[in-house]
Amino acid sequence: MDELGLIDDFLGPFGLRRNARSRAAGVLAGPGDDCAVVRASPRRKLVLKVDELVEGVHFDWRWFTPEDVGHKALAAALSDLAAACAVPRWFLCALGVHPGADASGIARGIARGMAALARRHRCVLVGGNVTRAAAWSISVSALGEAEHPRGRGGARPGDAIVVTGVLGRAALGLRLLRGHAAAPASRAVAAAIRAQRRPEPLLAAGLAAGTLATAAVDVSDGFLRDLGHICAASQCGAEVDVRTLPVDGAVRAATLELALSGGEDYALVFAVRRRNVARLLSRLRQSGARAAEVGRFVRGRGIRLSEHGRPRALPRRLGWDHLA
Amino acid sequence: MDELGLIDDFLGPFGLRRNARSRAAGVLAGPGDDCAVVRASPRRKLVLKVDELVEGVHFDWRWFTPEDVGHKALAAALSDLAAACAVPRWFLCALGVHPGADASGIARGIARGMAALARRHRCVLVGGNVTRAAAWSISVSALGEAEHPRGRGGARPGDAIVVTGVLGRAALGLRLLRGHAAAPASRAVAAAIRAQRRPEPLLAAGLAAGTLATAAVDVSDGFLRDLGHICAASQCGAEVDVRTLPVDGAVRAATLELALSGGEDYALVFAVRRRNVARLLSRLRQSGARAAEVGRFVRGRGIRLSEHGRPRALPRRLGWDHLA
Repeated sequence: MDELGLIDDFLGPFGLRRNARSRAAGVLAGPGDDCAVVRASPRRKLVLKVDELVEGVHFDWRWFTPEDVGHKALAAALSDLAAACAVPRWFLCALGVHPGADASGIARGIARGMAALARRHRCVLVGGNVTRAAAWSISVSALGEAEHPRGRGGARPGDAIVVTGVLGRAALGLRLLRGHAAAPASRAVAAAIRAQRRPEPLLAAGLAAGTLATAAVDVSDGFLRDLGHICAASQCGAEVDVRTLPVDGAVRAATLELALSGGEDYALVFAVRRRNVARLLSRLRQSGARAAEVGRFVRGRGIRLSEHGRPRALPRRLGWDHLA
Repeated sequence: MDELGLIDDFLGPFGLRRNARSRAAGVLAGPGDDCAVVRASPRRKLVLKVDELVEGVHFDWRWFTPEDVGHKALAAALSDLAAACAVPRWFLCALGVHPGADASGIARGIARGMAALARRHRCVLVGGNVTRAAAWSISVSALGEAEHPRGRGGARPGDAIVVTGVLGRAALGLRLLRGHAAAPASRAVAAAIRAQRRPEPLLAAGLAAGTLATAAVDVSDGFLRDLGHICAASQCGAEVDVRTLPVDGAVRAATLELALSGGEDYALVFAVRRRNVARLLSRLRQSGARAAEVGRFVRGRGIRLSEHGRPRALPRRLGWDHLA
C-alpha cells in the first residue's frame, strides 16, 4: 500500500483526482494541491467545526461498515453547522490509516459513505491528509457560511426549550449492536441501528429555525450534557418535562436514560422566546423534522427534570465524556 | 481526567477559556461554542490546509517534549500556507489523547508550544475537538487568506528552481536523536536537532516571494518528492545541480540523501521565470531566509540530478510515504 495510491482510492467516490482541478463552485484549488483555495461569500460569516471519530472509541468494525464510518464522521460535523444555522460549503478530512491488506478498500468505503452525504448537502471535499496510525481515525473540518450564526449563548430565563429530531434512538442502536438490549419490534430495531450508524444531520431544520431560535446546540454527547452547554453559555438553568421529550416507544420501554444522556442523537436543542414557539415548531415540522417543546430556561443554574408534574432525579451520568 | 478539565488546561496557554469570547480580530465565536465563527476579508481567497502528527509515526516522546510536538503540528500546516503565499488567520485543532496520569500536563505542553508559534504569526485558535485515542495525535486545520494564492501547477519549462530555507537538517536531527549518526561539531548538532523538533515555517519568505514565484511547494516529505509534485502538477520535468542545494556541511558530511529525500525541512521550493530569479533571491534574503537557485524545470517528465556537470543517480527513495 502506498500513500498516493490510497489517496487516489479515497478521492474516487468524490469524483476527484489528484492533479485535476475540482469543478465545484467556489473551489479554486482542491485535493492534489498543497492547500485548498476557496472563495467565501461576501457578507456571510464563516462557521467552522472540527470533529473526529476514532476506531475503538467511536466505532467498532464489527458493527460498522467503512461507509457507515465515513457518513457518520461528516454527519457529526455537519450537525454542528445545522445548530449554528450555517449552510455547509467545504470540508477537509484527515485520515489516520491502520495499515493492513485492505486499507485501500476501507479508505474507499469511508469515502463512499462520506461522498454520498456530502453530495446531498452540497458540501465539497477540498483537501485532506493521510497518515499511518495505530487505529483508524477520521477527522473532519467543516466550513459553512451563515448570515446570522447561532451560538449557545442566546437563551434567556423564560425562553422555551424546543427539540427537533429524536432522542435516545442512537444509544439504543448501540446497545442493540453490542447485544446488551433485548430486541424490540423489528421496525424499531432497524430505526435504532440506522440512527447509530447513519445519523442524519438536521440541516434543513437548522436553517428553517433561522433567527426565531436564539441559541442552539446539537445533541452529540447526550441531551442533558448538551443542554447544559446552552445553560452555561447563557448563564441560566433549565426545567425539562421528560414526558414531552421526542422519544420512541422502544427507547421509553428500555430506559429513558438513553434519551437523557445517551448521545449521538444529532438532534438540535433550541432556545426560543415564548411568543415564537408555535412558529418555530411549525417551521421545523415543515422542514420534515419532528419537533417538540420540552421545557423552559429558568433563572439560576442546573437542570431540573419533572415527570407528571413531580420532580424526577437526574441520571448519574449526564452524557458522554470523551476522555472518561 | 475529564474532558472539560483537559480542554481548560489546553486553552490556558492560548489565553482562552470555555464560555468566554475570544477577543481576537475577526473572531465572533471561538472555543467553547459549538462552532467557531470568523469574518473573512473581502476580496481575498481562503487558503485551507489540514495536517496531522501521530505519536509513534511523526514523533516519539523519548525525543520530543509536548511543547515540541505542539509547535511542530502547527508549523507543518503553516508551512503549506507559506508556500501558498497566504497570511495565516485561524486554526482548529483536533487532539487525540492517550489517557494516562499526565494527560492534562501533556495537553497543556502541546498547547504551550502551539500557542507561542501561533502568537508570533498571529494565527488564532478558534476551535477544536478532544477524543480518547490509543496514541496521541494532533490534527491542525489552518486557514489563511491570500490575494494571489500560489499552487503547484504554475511552473514552465525554462523556469528556475529556487529553494529557500535549508535541506537535510531535520533529517540529520532525527538520526542524531535516534543515535544513528556520529555527532558532528556541537553547533551543527544543535541546529539539526532544533530543525527536527522546532521547524520554523517560512511565512515571511513565502509572502516576500509574492507573484514573482509562479508555483511553490513546501518540503515536508523530502525535496525530490515535493519537487516532483510541482513537476506533476505543471507537467514538466526538472534538473537539479546537487552542489547548489542549500545544505549544511554536517549534512553533506553525513550523506546528501538527507537533503534529497529526508523530509520535514519545511523549506520552500519555487518556480520562477528566468528574468525574475535575481529579484526573487534578493527578496527572499531580505526576508531573513537563505535562498539558492538549484536548477531548472525542463520539458518532459522526471527529475535528473547532476554534480560537477556529470549525471548523478537518484536516491532509491525520493521521500517520505506516509503509509509505507
